[in-house]
Amino acid sequence: MSFFPLPASDKAALEEGDRFTPRFDGAGLVTAVVTDAGDGELLMVGHMNEEALKLTLETGIAHFWSRSRGTLWKKGETSGNLLHVEEVRTDCDQDAVWLKVAVGGHDATCHTGRRSCFYRSVRIEDGAARLADDGSGAKFDPDAVYGASD
Amino acid sequence: MSFFPLPASDKAALEEGDRFTPRFDGAGLVTAVVTDAGDGELLMVGHMNEEALKLTLETGIAHFWSRSRGTLWKKGETSGNLLHVEEVRTDCDQDAVWLKVAVGGHDATCHTGRRSCFYRSVRIEDGAARLADDGSGAKFDPDAVYGASD
Repeated sequence: MSFFPLPASDKAALEEGDRFTPRFDGAGLVTAVVTDAGDGELLMVGHMNEEALKLTLETGIAHFWSRSRGTLWKKGETSGNLLHVEEVRTDCDQDAVWLKVAVGGHDATCHTGRRSCFYRSVRIEDGAARLADDGSGAKFDPDAVYGASD
Repeated sequence: MSFFPLPASDKAALEEGDRFTPRFDGAGLVTAVVTDAGDGELLMVGHMNEEALKLTLETGIAHFWSRSRGTLWKKGETSGNLLHVEEVRTDCDQDAVWLKVAVGGHDATCHTGRRSCFYRSVRIEDGAARLADDGSGAKFDPDAVYGASD
């Protein structure tokens, strides 16, 4: 039996009710947006299956579903940069969650060592989409933390 | 031919390069996180196919792919609450974008009339996941704007 009730078919119950009935997509996932509880900076976007969402709510430590590895993922288990969840929110149609977190360890969420995964801006230049790095530096050495082959 | 180049197979190019090569998922979508460019508030999470992403970058008005309707969606076309994009960012593995926007019209992004779609917090109570409304009020009347049947 599922921990979360099935989503309401009634739109008013889904949008205005007090029951959390997450709407997992065809792959069994909801989108999870992670911001810093202190200054609101967007840190990362991940995905959660039912188990990851339940563990996050129950333990207060963010868990995700790694789409690339196909495994449950306790974020920060290797690096020590656990995400301590201060608040979870959901949106009107309950297919996304927002985690406000305090980041442990190096205060860095991105596996590249940076604080946030969103370190590059996008713009069209001469008809092509180009990226510009914001210069945010690494707060830890990924090779030392994950091993050089990762 | 696609507007965006195919994603680099080389991880360093994907993570550190200056070419925007969005990694659309199996459904042809990337996740789009929308925050207010002024105070950083998380307003909504949506999805973009290639056309929506290209139009957003070219016009400076946020476009999405509506998964529920299966159509391109110029957000705010009915309500007047267009999202004027001040900056677009992407994340380390280029499967998500972050839009910093100025909201037009009623300064409300949610179709329920609220400023943000994330008006409810989630917590476990007596073994069940419950929602608590933050009391943010409607900034416009959805029935009047969309029609009572929507």
